[in-house]
Amino acid sequence: MSRLVMKFGGTSVATVERIHNVARHVKREVEAGHQVAVVVSAMSGKTNELVAWCKEAAPLHDMREYDAVVASGEQVTAGLLAIALQKIGISARSWQGWQIPVLTDDAHGAARIQDIEAKGILGGFTRGEVAVVAGFQGIHAPTGRITTLGRGGSDTSAVALAAAIGADRCDIYTDVDGVYTTDPRVVPKARRMEKVAFEEMLEMASLGAKVLQVRSVEVALVHDVPTYVRSSFDDPENPRSGTLICKEEDILEAQVVTGIAFSRDEAQITLRRVADKPGVAAAVFMPLAEAGINVDMIVQTVSEDNMTDMTFTVGAADYDRARALLEQGKNGVGFASISGARDVAKVSAIGVGMRSHAGVAAQGFRALADKGINIRAITTSEIKFSVLIDAAYTELAVRTLHTLYGLDAG
Amino acid sequence: MSRLVMKFGGTSVATVERIHNVARHVKREVEAGHQVAVVVSAMSGKTNELVAWCKEAAPLHDMREYDAVVASGEQVTAGLLAIALQKIGISARSWQGWQIPVLTDDAHGAARIQDIEAKGILGGFTRGEVAVVAGFQGIHAPTGRITTLGRGGSDTSAVALAAAIGADRCDIYTDVDGVYTTDPRVVPKARRMEKVAFEEMLEMASLGAKVLQVRSVEVALVHDVPTYVRSSFDDPENPRSGTLICKEEDILEAQVVTGIAFSRDEAQITLRRVADKPGVAAAVFMPLAEAGINVDMIVQTVSEDNMTDMTFTVGAADYDRARALLEQGKNGVGFASISGARDVAKVSAIGVGMRSHAGVAAQGFRALADKGINIRAITTSEIKFSVLIDAAYTELAVRTLHTLYGLDAG
Repeated sequence: MSRLVMKFGGTSVATVERIHNVARHVKREVEAGHQVAVVVSAMSGKTNELVAWCKEAAPLHDMREYDAVVASGEQVTAGLLAIALQKIGISARSWQGWQIPVLTDDAHGAARIQDIEAKGILGGFTRGEVAVVAGFQGIHAPTGRITTLGRGGSDTSAVALAAAIGADRCDIYTDVDGVYTTDPRVVPKARRMEKVAFEEMLEMASLGAKVLQVRSVEVALVHDVPTYVRSSFDDPENPRSGTLICKEEDILEAQVVTGIAFSRDEAQITLRRVADKPGVAAAVFMPLAEAGINVDMIVQTVSEDNMTDMTFTVGAADYDRARALLEQGKNGVGFASISGARDVAKVSAIGVGMRSHAGVAAQGFRALADKGINIRAITTSEIKFSVLIDAAYTELAVRTLHTLYGLDAG
Repeated sequence: MSRLVMKFGGTSVATVERIHNVARHVKREVEAGHQVAVVVSAMSGKTNELVAWCKEAAPLHDMREYDAVVASGEQVTAGLLAIALQKIGISARSWQGWQIPVLTDDAHGAARIQDIEAKGILGGFTRGEVAVVAGFQGIHAPTGRITTLGRGGSDTSAVALAAAIGADRCDIYTDVDGVYTTDPRVVPKARRMEKVAFEEMLEMASLGAKVLQVRSVEVALVHDVPTYVRSSFDDPENPRSGTLICKEEDILEAQVVTGIAFSRDEAQITLRRVADKPGVAAAVFMPLAEAGINVDMIVQTVSEDNMTDMTFTVGAADYDRARALLEQGKNGVGFASISGARDVAKVSAIGVGMRSHAGVAAQGFRALADKGINIRAITTSEIKFSVLIDAAYTELAVRTLHTLYGLDAG
C-alpha cells in the first residue's frame, strides 16, 4: 500500500462547497488504495483578516500571540474537511500542529520544523483513517506555544509531513495545473512542464515563480520527496496531469533552459565614488544584514583612482529602510552620493543543462541587447542567470528569452 | 494581593476597537493591585458562523471536529486581547484550553470541566503577567482532542477558573449593567439588584433570565465564588456598580420575592384519557428522555374511571419531535388523543424568602386570576413558583407579579 500527502491551498478551501470538492479528490485517492494525509491552508482571505486584526490590536505585536491568532484559520479548515470526508463515507480526523506534534523552533511567525512525530497519524492509517492536518502551524515544545511557519508555510508542512511518514509522493493542489515555463499571463505560449528538477524549481521559486514556497522545495530536495503540482479545480473523478518536481536523473529529455522567471519586487541602490579599500563592502552591507534586509545582486565597477561605484538590489518593501540606513552610515563608509530606482525588474533563465552548455547566458544577453534592453546588473549561478532591467521591459525580455531557448509551445 | 477573574462576552469583544476597551478595564484592575485572569468569548457572530459551516459540511457531524472548529473563535480573541494589553504596557499572555490545561470529559459540544491545572497561570502571576484565557474550551486528556462546553460556556470557564486559582471574585462583564428584578424591556420599572443569592440566580437562569449560563451559577454556588455581573460598556476608568451573586447570608435586606423570570420557549402537550395505572408515566416519559428531550412542568388530573389527562411542557424546539415520538408510542402507552400548544409562556417568581413565608404563591395565583389570566399548569420549589399561561398574557402577568411583590422601582 502506498502513502500519499495531498495539500490544498486557500483558494481550494475558500468555501464549504469547495471543501466538499476537496473531499472528493481525497476519496479518489483513498479508493485507489492509498493511505492519505491531507494538509490544508486557511480559507482564502481568512489569514489576511486575522493578520489585519493583529495589526489593528498593535502595529508591533508579540509574535507568539500573532501565531495563536493566525493558526486558528487552518484549525477551522481541518475540522470542516474531516466532517466533509466523513459525510461521504471516508473515515477521517483532524490534527492540529500541537496534536501531532509538529515540533518547531521558537522563531514565531517564521518558525522552522525540527521534527514531526508521525506515530499518531500512522496509527490512524492502520485504522483506515485519513489524517486531515492543519498546515502552516506547529508547537515550540519547551514553551508549549503555537508557532506558524510564515506565509506559504502549508506547502512546507505538506512536504515535511511526506518526509516524516515516508510518503511516496506529495501532491500540491493549487489554482493552476502545474509549473509553467514562465507566467502564461505574460507569455501566452508558455508550456506546462511534465517534470522539473528540484534544483530548477528551487531557483524558480526563489526568483519569483509563486507556485510553491521556496522552503517547501528545499525540504523536498533534502528529503527527496517527489512533489506533484496539480489543479484542485479539475473534476475530482477525472483529474488532468500536473508537473512532477523530482530528481534530475529522473528527467530523461532535459532541456538546457527549463523556464524563465521574473520578479518586479526589486529595487536598485547605487553608491557613487565609494573608497575602494578592504572592509568597505562589510561597512556597506553589515548594517543592512543586521536590519534583516536581504541584498541580492551586487555589481562593483572597476576601480579608478581608488574610487568605485557599487550597485545592488534589495526587496522593494525594504527600499526606504535600506536607503535611510545607508544615509545614516554615510560618513563611516565614505561615499559621494546615493541613488536608486524602484522601477526595475529581475528576469532569470533557469536550467540544470546550463552546467554542461557554455555560452547560454551570453546568448541571452545578446538577444536582450538586440531588442534594445539595457542590462543594469547580472548575477549567475551554475544553473541560472539573472539580469536586472527597467521594469517597463519585463514582458519583452521574458518573451525574448522564452523564444530564444525554445520554450514556446509548438 | 487579591486575585480576580474578569470575563468578557462576545458583544464586548466584537471588534478590535472593543477589545482595546476591554484592555482598559483590565488595566484598571491591574493598577488597583489585583492579579488578573481574563476569560474571553469569541467575537460576536463568529461562533454562529463557525457552527453554520459545520452544518454546511454535514448536517449531522462528528462533534469532535465541531469542537475543533468552533474553539478557534475564542483562540483568536485571546491572542488579540493579549496584544492589546501589551500595547498599553500590561504584561499578558494568551492561554488556550489545552495549554492550561482545562481538563474536561469527552462529551464533545457540551463537555463538563473536571479539573483546571492552575500552575502555569499562577506562575505567570508571580511574573506580573495577566492570563488571557480562551473561554468555552478545554481538552479531553486521554484522546488529546479539543472540547467545548456548549453555548454560554465561557461563563462557566470563568467561574471554574476563579475557583481553581482561588480568586476573590469573578466579574462577568456583559452588555447589561447587572441582574434586574425582571426584563426591563417588559417592565420599565424593573430595578437592578445590588445582591442576589446563588440559589435565586440559579432559578432565574434556569427559568429564562439570560444574563448568566445556568451551569456557571451552579459552579459558583458549589465553589462559593462571589460573582459580579457588570457592564463592559461603562467608562473603563469610572465603571458603575453591577449585581453581586453571593451567599444568602451575605444579603442583609432579603426580600420575599427577588425577581420575576419568564420564558416563551415553551410548548405544552396534553394527552387525553391515559390509563391511570402503574408504569404509565414511565411509558410516556422514557422515550422522550432517551431522545434527549427535557420535560418540565407535569400536571396530571385526578383520575376518573381509571383514566386521566396528562399535561406537560417541553422546549419549543423539541415540540415537533416530542409529538412524533408520542404518536409512535400511542398504542404502547394507551391514550385517546394528543393535543398541544406552542403559544404558551412560563412565568416564575423567585425568592429565598419564600422558604419562611407561607402563602406567597397563593397571593400570586389570586393576582393573576384577578387580571383574567388562566393558569394552565403550576410547578413550585422551595424558593420559586412557576405558572404556564397563554403567551399573549406574558407581559401582563410579569408586570402584575412585579408590582404585587413590591419590586417596582420607587
